[in-house]
Amino acid sequence: MIHLVTGGAGFIGSHLTRELVKHEHDVIVFDDLSLGNIRYLDDALTGGFCTFMKVNCANLAHFRAAVDQALDGRNAQAIWHFAANSDIPAGIVDPIVDLQHTFMTTFNALQLMKEFNIPEFHFSSSSAIYGDFGHALIDESSGPCLPISNYGAMKLASEGQVCATLEGHGQKASIFRFPNVIGVPATHGVILDFVKKLRADKNCLRVLGDGTQQKAYLHVDDLISGMLFIVEAGQSKINLYNIGPCDDGVTVRFIAETVRDSVAPDAEIIYGCEDRGWVGDVPRFRYATAKLAELGWQPSMSSEAAVHRAVREIAHDICNF
Amino acid sequence: MIHLVTGGAGFIGSHLTRELVKHEHDVIVFDDLSLGNIRYLDDALTGGFCTFMKVNCANLAHFRAAVDQALDGRNAQAIWHFAANSDIPAGIVDPIVDLQHTFMTTFNALQLMKEFNIPEFHFSSSSAIYGDFGHALIDESSGPCLPISNYGAMKLASEGQVCATLEGHGQKASIFRFPNVIGVPATHGVILDFVKKLRADKNCLRVLGDGTQQKAYLHVDDLISGMLFIVEAGQSKINLYNIGPCDDGVTVRFIAETVRDSVAPDAEIIYGCEDRGWVGDVPRFRYATAKLAELGWQPSMSSEAAVHRAVREIAHDICNF
Repeated sequence: MIHLVTGGAGFIGSHLTRELVKHEHDVIVFDDLSLGNIRYLDDALTGGFCTFMKVNCANLAHFRAAVDQALDGRNAQAIWHFAANSDIPAGIVDPIVDLQHTFMTTFNALQLMKEFNIPEFHFSSSSAIYGDFGHALIDESSGPCLPISNYGAMKLASEGQVCATLEGHGQKASIFRFPNVIGVPATHGVILDFVKKLRADKNCLRVLGDGTQQKAYLHVDDLISGMLFIVEAGQSKINLYNIGPCDDGVTVRFIAETVRDSVAPDAEIIYGCEDRGWVGDVPRFRYATAKLAELGWQPSMSSEAAVHRAVREIAHDICNF
Repeated sequence: MIHLVTGGAGFIGSHLTRELVKHEHDVIVFDDLSLGNIRYLDDALTGGFCTFMKVNCANLAHFRAAVDQALDGRNAQAIWHFAANSDIPAGIVDPIVDLQHTFMTTFNALQLMKEFNIPEFHFSSSSAIYGDFGHALIDESSGPCLPISNYGAMKLASEGQVCATLEGHGQKASIFRFPNVIGVPATHGVILDFVKKLRADKNCLRVLGDGTQQKAYLHVDDLISGMLFIVEAGQSKINLYNIGPCDDGVTVRFIAETVRDSVAPDAEIIYGCEDRGWVGDVPRFRYATAKLAELGWQPSMSSEAAVHRAVREIAHDICNF
């Protein structure tokens, strides 16, 4: 069984690739290495099950040529589409970034799914599609979706295009809506930011916002486990699930203190005044995961446990750079 | 007050333009005339309040130049974005059609809203964003949206981009989600199809599908009235409303019989076997309009009354061609 993984050299994609290879699937990774790193795939590439193609999936002609060359007449079972601009603030500055890297990559991957007769499409969507629901619990049927970042808008656009395409082509799709995912190799995010800041200045950690923003955090190991479960157990044509911890998340203050305790215990933490860090940031977030629990899966770690583990991993990882 | 209307030479856009001109607003219409027709604007163009620019809004450079030339340094109050591929089946064949004409036109209009500091954005979305909810009543908070046509997907994508853009720019946006809109000048749709078929063959009307598909139909006069009401009365930053009749709609069978009675009373109607006409067609449809009723507006016509009137108008219109 051949699996195509776009963005497979990125944070989440490389974990998935490793897991698929572990199960002795043939995996072909497509990545432009703009945010990913071939180094993340070192162990996956050694066993002979994994092929790497450097390509920008936003360019359909290049992407098509890479798939054609890699498949060489063989049939693929699934596209796992993880290529995206994962740097939300960068996409706020210029909406073309998310148009190209978050949406057009999806549009093109779906075109190639049709052209190469690939039966399954598994898509990493995001809790960013929902927008700001305040204190309300967000489940899969919550609406209307009013995303406040270009990233969220282009993930929502991608979901729509997945559904429309599956109406006439392919057998089965998954849409995974997940919140902040943490672990190593961290390419962006609040933990990495804090670790970097504290390594630059051991005495002081300046935090954007007042630290009260509260969000759910999922460890990447749980995410991979959840996605593989959905692909196996989901019986619908479109299997759409929130994947997240079974709690209301932790505050930025908790994360700042955890990083401080781990990296520079004597540092002073200085907070801003706003209840959100930057335009496009949702200040609070309550995420319902009952649908996936009903299907039979739940994460092994709470938000708190995930943050504790990720802080250790990231602090360790960054020391070894 | 200057209003920019994209797709202003189309079916709905030309009605809106006429209404804005009637209220002595300056209106600048942008249309590529691929589905619209300058003839629809004849009366609007005579009074000196309306300017027409022939441009493809999917081409940002051309669109920007047209806006720049037409505004000539003046400020605009609002963009009414109606340009889209309204031919859903055409978009099923090639998703690039809706990508370009339904989504990229929106993306570009939002870019120009920012560049020209235009405070308001009013967007014609669609009930097609919802997908197939079966017999469930669809209100504005229904989800998840799983559109089954590329048109629906790209309208959903557009909604997302409107929300994300308004987070950092502009003052107010409207998102109008409406079902099938009928009236003249009809450019597409089931009534026009039936009228044309019966004028080609007075003895027989062949209907795709078994005629049981039931949908809500809104007369274009009611739509214009509803949109103008929302723009005036809506107090949110994003004013998102279903606009539709207060009923569960009428069947294709009812429409076929109404057209037959009006155009060729002796014709035999022959139905197909499927419960939907073509891929991307939603077989049934129940549309909640309580939110707009609460704001203070309801349509003057039921689906039945709207169909009766539109059949008369279209049959009359087509005779005068």
